[in-house]
Amino acid sequence: MDQKVVLDTLWVMIAGMLVFFMNAGFAMVESGFGRAKNTVNILSKNFIVFAISSLAFWALGWGLMFGNGNGFIGLEGLWGLGGADNSPATGDAYQGAYAAISWATVPLLAKFFFQLVFAGTAATIVSGAVAERIKYLTFILFSFILVAFLYPITGHWIWGGGWLAQLGFWDFAGSTTVHSVGGWAALAGVLVLGPRIGKFKGGKSYPIPGHSMPLATLGAFILWLGWFGFNPGSTMAADPSAVAHIALTTNSAAAAGILSSTIAAWLIIGKPDLSMTINGCLGGLVAITAGCAYVSVGSSIIIGLIAGVLVVFAVLGFDRLRIDDPVGALSVHLVNGVFGTLAVGLFAQSQFTPNTTGDGLFFGGGGGLLMNQIIGVATVGLFTFGASLGVWFALKAMVGIRVSPEEELEGLDIGEHGMSAYPEFAIAAEHSYEVVESQRPSAPKPGSLPGSQVAVDVEG
Amino acid sequence: MDQKVVLDTLWVMIAGMLVFFMNAGFAMVESGFGRAKNTVNILSKNFIVFAISSLAFWALGWGLMFGNGNGFIGLEGLWGLGGADNSPATGDAYQGAYAAISWATVPLLAKFFFQLVFAGTAATIVSGAVAERIKYLTFILFSFILVAFLYPITGHWIWGGGWLAQLGFWDFAGSTTVHSVGGWAALAGVLVLGPRIGKFKGGKSYPIPGHSMPLATLGAFILWLGWFGFNPGSTMAADPSAVAHIALTTNSAAAAGILSSTIAAWLIIGKPDLSMTINGCLGGLVAITAGCAYVSVGSSIIIGLIAGVLVVFAVLGFDRLRIDDPVGALSVHLVNGVFGTLAVGLFAQSQFTPNTTGDGLFFGGGGGLLMNQIIGVATVGLFTFGASLGVWFALKAMVGIRVSPEEELEGLDIGEHGMSAYPEFAIAAEHSYEVVESQRPSAPKPGSLPGSQVAVDVEG
Amino acid sequence: MDQKVVLDTLWVMIAGMLVFFMNAGFAMVESGFGRAKNTVNILSKNFIVFAISSLAFWALGWGLMFGNGNGFIGLEGLWGLGGADNSPATGDAYQGAYAAISWATVPLLAKFFFQLVFAGTAATIVSGAVAERIKYLTFILFSFILVAFLYPITGHWIWGGGWLAQLGFWDFAGSTTVHSVGGWAALAGVLVLGPRIGKFKGGKSYPIPGHSMPLATLGAFILWLGWFGFNPGSTMAADPSAVAHIALTTNSAAAAGILSSTIAAWLIIGKPDLSMTINGCLGGLVAITAGCAYVSVGSSIIIGLIAGVLVVFAVLGFDRLRIDDPVGALSVHLVNGVFGTLAVGLFAQSQFTPNTTGDGLFFGGGGGLLMNQIIGVATVGLFTFGASLGVWFALKAMVGIRVSPEEELEGLDIGEHGMSAYPEFAIAAEHSYEVVESQRPSAPKPGSLPGSQVAVDVEG
Repeated sequence: MDQKVVLDTLWVMIAGMLVFFMNAGFAMVESGFGRAKNTVNILSKNFIVFAISSLAFWALGWGLMFGNGNGFIGLEGLWGLGGADNSPATGDAYQGAYAAISWATVPLLAKFFFQLVFAGTAATIVSGAVAERIKYLTFILFSFILVAFLYPITGHWIWGGGWLAQLGFWDFAGSTTVHSVGGWAALAGVLVLGPRIGKFKGGKSYPIPGHSMPLATLGAFILWLGWFGFNPGSTMAADPSAVAHIALTTNSAAAAGILSSTIAAWLIIGKPDLSMTINGCLGGLVAITAGCAYVSVGSSIIIGLIAGVLVVFAVLGFDRLRIDDPVGALSVHLVNGVFGTLAVGLFAQSQFTPNTTGDGLFFGGGGGLLMNQIIGVATVGLFTFGASLGVWFALKAMVGIRVSPEEELEGLDIGEHGMSAYPEFAIAAEHSYEVVESQRPSAPKPGSLPGSQVAVDVEG
Repeated sequence: MDQKVVLDTLWVMIAGMLVFFMNAGFAMVESGFGRAKNTVNILSKNFIVFAISSLAFWALGWGLMFGNGNGFIGLEGLWGLGGADNSPATGDAYQGAYAAISWATVPLLAKFFFQLVFAGTAATIVSGAVAERIKYLTFILFSFILVAFLYPITGHWIWGGGWLAQLGFWDFAGSTTVHSVGGWAALAGVLVLGPRIGKFKGGKSYPIPGHSMPLATLGAFILWLGWFGFNPGSTMAADPSAVAHIALTTNSAAAAGILSSTIAAWLIIGKPDLSMTINGCLGGLVAITAGCAYVSVGSSIIIGLIAGVLVVFAVLGFDRLRIDDPVGALSVHLVNGVFGTLAVGLFAQSQFTPNTTGDGLFFGGGGGLLMNQIIGVATVGLFTFGASLGVWFALKAMVGIRVSPEEELEGLDIGEHGMSAYPEFAIAAEHSYEVVESQRPSAPKPGSLPGSQVAVDVEG
Repeated sequence: MDQKVVLDTLWVMIAGMLVFFMNAGFAMVESGFGRAKNTVNILSKNFIVFAISSLAFWALGWGLMFGNGNGFIGLEGLWGLGGADNSPATGDAYQGAYAAISWATVPLLAKFFFQLVFAGTAATIVSGAVAERIKYLTFILFSFILVAFLYPITGHWIWGGGWLAQLGFWDFAGSTTVHSVGGWAALAGVLVLGPRIGKFKGGKSYPIPGHSMPLATLGAFILWLGWFGFNPGSTMAADPSAVAHIALTTNSAAAAGILSSTIAAWLIIGKPDLSMTINGCLGGLVAITAGCAYVSVGSSIIIGLIAGVLVVFAVLGFDRLRIDDPVGALSVHLVNGVFGTLAVGLFAQSQFTPNTTGDGLFFGGGGGLLMNQIIGVATVGLFTFGASLGVWFALKAMVGIRVSPEEELEGLDIGEHGMSAYPEFAIAAEHSYEVVESQRPSAPKPGSLPGSQVAVDVEG
């Protein structure tokens, strides 16, 4: 056996396992930032979504994304990985239905496993933003459609040899392909769903604090770990320099995002809010995902610093726009997915990966790359947001999208699942923010940060 | 150094680390499905059991399992890995006391590490089923005996070159060798212990809900991750095609088990119960463990679908039989360990691993393989159940097996460990199911699912 | 590409990722052993500390530690990894500023990533000992100084080709370099800070139980997993025999530490206290860290057994000395860091790593090695403790070190971060130990174990 095949496959599989584990990270972050009464529902969504993704991407998604076809969609080998394929043969030796990914020197099922865990990530991003009011069945159906159809189509444009790939749009590990796609789908869902009861009232935004910071923090650590598979693994090859370089840019952006979001929160809202720190970390990770292989460690720090500040302003901004995102998923994945993709156009240096991006605007490469990145961000966003909106409306018409107000107030755990997450613990009743205030000597004013407990006044 | 040795060892060690981490998964699942008052005890059992296993398998278990001997037991190199061994030499070049595992191209200590984490898994399976009433010391002593003697003996039959291996019984990663052995030992313990106080009363079964669904869900994700070491790692070689194939069958069975158990629960008990979904996932993983290398991805989905449904019916069935298994360990590990082993006889296809199983019944291979699998399941079950029963009775006579009723009602945390898991939180008192009911607007009737809160009437 | 570079880099990066994940382990152990009212603060410290470390070690620490220089400090390539370096070239082919680590056949950024996660560990050790009373900003500033200056200086002595390396002082994976350095820095902080309010009163020590044993146990499992990167990864090479050997000595010491600490606690304080079991495990892991490559599996068991007992006595001893360490970090990292380093002088056997330690005292090597180990332990301790004391006093003078008594009583979560970790749960008020006592039928006397709830009387 060719040693390169062995080495590359080992690395791709291990990296894929780390990315798989991000499902646990999302489950912990999202349930930690949600309320106790909706915890079983959030956990259930995060647990079943990867099962749905596994079957949807196997049944159809993979073929639409990587099957030979035209610039817009894959057409060969659509069903159940059924196309011809002589992987790990590469280059001219490759013969099969999935030529776009024939550069990876690993068996077909290794390619599929690694791409599957990415598809699952896009789906799980949605779950946080629509939490605490969506019907369980509706979320399951949307996830299936997203992973079977929507994600693979734009994925084909970028990673499947489609028109954006041909244009010269670069997204190394998926700031756009995965994160902003999840973010756009989530935004559409949030707009169709509307805000949670009690979130916006009389021109003010009320904070709905997350019920468990240990869960949220643990989740963030797991996601950070998983990103060491997500980004360095996207080499799909055991390339020592690239893997080490990407691990460093990834880690540096996370570290910088932590610091800048913490400082921004300290300056703007007066305290180093942990939910901001966590989302700043995740924002830095999302933002470096597109460019992790193309930029220097120094640039990655700058990208992370910007991402952390962006998260804080985005959280405040969505609140002002009365867009209710319980966990900050839009600020993390959509805003920084877009930013990170554009950052490639600014910070890329051809020295790191010759014959790919060329140099970005800040390194003498002119604005051409940036323009391509803008085109990619815009078209992927338009398609995903538009199509998702259609799907959400269709699901709303067919099976309903939102639980009843009674169920929402009582909590989705009882209504949707017939159980509670903490049956033995004494939990404060519905209007949790009031309870929280009365427990605090220094009671904050009503506020608005997702997962946060710091108060902000907003004008209607 | 031969590159194959390096590659195989890296993979075996990394896979073994993932399997090690399953200890954390079991600890979280079991404590999440238990009550708050027994949490320290459950955690303590899960924490110390791998320490016990580490020493027991080093001192004696390894030698009994892999030492050269007869068809029933290893006899050479019994104590402390003390036999001659020139690993990583293989085939004719191998000279030493552990010929049965000389096919693996890795150093002796790498073989031992990987097999140790498997032995530990068998022991930790027991802990969930006997939880909330067993004496701490008794559990420790049983675990030592299981890992030093019982597990290695049947392990020798199957993986140590013993009579079942010679017969043509196939269990790739341990549906029988590990999971059903743990399950039979647990069943014996459960029968000797009897049900928890309050579980069965007046012809009815009362639900005893798990105290923390986040812990249980996190644990399930960790176990799922660990299974990517458990099954693909059982190649004990960095074989690209095999590792990728096995990772896919493993993941597909888990996904299918999630879906079928969720649907079954939705149809039968009216709600998509999260504890059923979690146990359906684990059931799918157990069921694919024997055949992960021998069956197609499509077959793995069918196996997973069956496993998920089996879990739901097994949970209801054990309840009807008044067998009290707080976490569903019997339904997951025993029932699906048996099913998964038999499934090899049905779904195996010789194309995946030539010169091993041949074809199963559904692929034209006739019933011979299935018959061998039945023989293996039955003899291993008889031996392990019988021997375990003897050990449990002996321990009962010598040191006692069950805590006092007062201690059980108060909780084992105070009685056995002098501490509580959540000393600052307000916890509802003993009859937790009553509290739960009164907290719920739509109070369920008394029911019976392990870790679940959905009510089921059973007739005595 | 040279296959050895590929293999070594894969292993170093994966091992580094496991070590990175130890941050999550520390966060869970420390928050679990702390009180609910300080949980956000503890999590925040553990989350931001690796961000601080990432930037501090990149900016300066790496160069001071591994840069060419004299016996006491690195002087070349100080800033931002800016020195010349032609890694992965090794031996005579290496040309660059970081010759001391040129033996590792991996790219510069892989070396940096692996060393960074070690530096981060030293910093995070401090956080547990100073928990529940330190100002957030002060902790951040100290962490920066520790990782940018103090840790790299003694690190240079040992791993950077400095005077201890030349003397013949051996510390394979960092019992001294990482763990006791963190421990000495923590001890200095604890002394400057003083004990928590209510810990020592009227000649008695009062227990302050940890608020969540599931978090603490999960954290311990994560740390144990991480140690399989920490110790076997310190080969910085995919050496099959060494990796397997080290994984085994590491695991055996952990297992032995679990058993001996549990038994010691059972005998001395009457119950198998879970916090003692956890700290015994960690103590065993710290103690084997220096010698994991140099000692036999049998010796590792003995080292672990001693370490577990040492933890129990150290916890009781620090309490008697009125040194308040909420999580037992000093007993685990300082005491066993020292012990483990000395154990190399006793248990080393030259057969495992020729041309390094030679034989220790118990294996016929005489006392020379032990003397070198004593010199290293003492000088590193003197430097780190002294310098840390100076830094802590300087920070105290400039920005303050301790939160106000009002804030400490209310909890640092509200005071420092404006939020609470569990806003919906009913939490018992300040004097948590009184609440705990009243909840228990068999109320313990006031006691003192960190994270423990077992009572011990101490005389002033």
